[in-house]
Amino acid sequence: MAWRTAVFSSCRRVRLNRHLYHRTPLGARAAVDSVELTFVVSPSGEKFQEASMFCLRMTLYFFLLATVAYAKENYFQMRQTGFLNRTVTINQTTYRYQVYLPANFTTKQKWPVILFLHGAGERGDDGIFQTQVGLGAAIRQHPERFPCIVVFPQCRRNRVWYGEMEQQALQALDESIKKFNGDPQRVYLTGLSMGGYGTFYIASRHPGKFAALASICGGVVPPPTFPFPPDAAAKIPTEQPYATIAQRLGKTPVWIFHGDADDVIPVTESRQMAEALRTLGGNVKYTEYAGVTHNSWDRVYAEPEFISWLLSNRLAK
Amino acid sequence: MAWRTAVFSSCRRVRLNRHLYHRTPLGARAAVDSVELTFVVSPSGEKFQEASMFCLRMTLYFFLLATVAYAKENYFQMRQTGFLNRTVTINQTTYRYQVYLPANFTTKQKWPVILFLHGAGERGDDGIFQTQVGLGAAIRQHPERFPCIVVFPQCRRNRVWYGEMEQQALQALDESIKKFNGDPQRVYLTGLSMGGYGTFYIASRHPGKFAALASICGGVVPPPTFPFPPDAAAKIPTEQPYATIAQRLGKTPVWIFHGDADDVIPVTESRQMAEALRTLGGNVKYTEYAGVTHNSWDRVYAEPEFISWLLSNRLAK
Repeated sequence: MAWRTAVFSSCRRVRLNRHLYHRTPLGARAAVDSVELTFVVSPSGEKFQEASMFCLRMTLYFFLLATVAYAKENYFQMRQTGFLNRTVTINQTTYRYQVYLPANFTTKQKWPVILFLHGAGERGDDGIFQTQVGLGAAIRQHPERFPCIVVFPQCRRNRVWYGEMEQQALQALDESIKKFNGDPQRVYLTGLSMGGYGTFYIASRHPGKFAALASICGGVVPPPTFPFPPDAAAKIPTEQPYATIAQRLGKTPVWIFHGDADDVIPVTESRQMAEALRTLGGNVKYTEYAGVTHNSWDRVYAEPEFISWLLSNRLAK
Repeated sequence: MAWRTAVFSSCRRVRLNRHLYHRTPLGARAAVDSVELTFVVSPSGEKFQEASMFCLRMTLYFFLLATVAYAKENYFQMRQTGFLNRTVTINQTTYRYQVYLPANFTTKQKWPVILFLHGAGERGDDGIFQTQVGLGAAIRQHPERFPCIVVFPQCRRNRVWYGEMEQQALQALDESIKKFNGDPQRVYLTGLSMGGYGTFYIASRHPGKFAALASICGGVVPPPTFPFPPDAAAKIPTEQPYATIAQRLGKTPVWIFHGDADDVIPVTESRQMAEALRTLGGNVKYTEYAGVTHNSWDRVYAEPEFISWLLSNRLAK
């Protein structure tokens, strides 16, 4: 490395108070030398001048070192973009997730941030498979449409986006906003299937956090074919579930999508949520794809209009 | 940042030779101060001692700065794993590519490196879509099976893996080996469809570079339905193309895959290459999937046996 060469080439032995001091290329040893120096100085002007020069040189070496190391660190911070592995720890459990940073990412500007909740098939603890299906795939197909940070937490097997899974998703989001200069006024939540349920649930518990929401083939009440674990099921409102959730979402802009031939999550889930939001004066768009079965997400995330709508929303300060 | 706080908290004004010097948190200004210092020193012992102490403090501040910045840089180098955006420049043209680093990556050990060549459908200049299909998808499905660095260059539209596309792929590979501590004895080349053609072609031109090769539904002579650009077509041996390439591959271990119902690249391409290698005493395995059409790559890259075979090969030193 350049700075190493620079420091190596400056290695030489200097004489101070009849002791030999060896200037090594390593800061630690050199610093110790200069500490020793303060104890050996005598009132002789010449010696002091020599000591002074030695200190000055050390100062300049360290200045060079610090500048180069700092520049390199900034280079890394700016240049490491793409789908990055990250972790978050909740109650001593470490959860892997990924953050997508666009190729032109720098921390010099504020960025919109999307929190993406995957479906049941991408659960696990590998921390990466959740980026293969849905939003991650859409980004790889058209990265130019996604000038934003995207956070991809991963739900554990046999769990849903409730309880500790909600916690890890939100903590991953918050840490990403902080670390990568996300704009708290432009934070969005979207998910597919089980992640569509997570979208309604998490947004309903954090009013004012998200500037817009999009649920794809999700819902509020899980079908008998996809029972939730008891602790999560207990969190679903038993009385008027759609109206209860809709009320908590308030005026947050929501776009709901569903295929009308969905054989996994009934289309009535999205229809009832859209209706409840409309009844309560919510800000809702509803799109139903004719003849589309469970996978409506590829179509949704490939719609440039959808992405630009999502990113156009902004919380009032 | 921690070190900024440290330096800020040390800001104070010091008096030297009746001039006021302001220690700023910026190294440049502080260093200038200490340069001035050498011109104002007088032979008085007390003043020299004061100057000496000033220099010593500067040295320690810069040492702290350098150490923290260096530690942070190492942290970034170690922690930024996943699918990273990178670029390579050939003849003033910048090509984007991605490098996959496993979550447990550190530069403390040497890593095997796979160069992956995508097919015709993933060409472009976005630098990312080539990781969605084939090896990238397989990694996301089972990251635990890929304890290696993977380099994903991207071929421009209307080009194939010949000429400057070959150059950018190899330069991306070489830069990745160097930067991420790749093991030159364990470098592998694999590709699908157009990338299978690239695998044979590039390996034939760089004997002794790759420890093993795998071509999936590729070949040597392009079919009339997929004509190569003239400059690339001119590079295909006209006399005994399979034997010519096979001879150049020598004893490099090769595994060839093809679906026998492939309707894009004829299965005879792979059959003829396997036969030519066998005839010349090459180290070849050939697997034909019955009833499989063009996409045999999902099946190949999902075979744990294939990945462990690939990574088990090593060049003699």
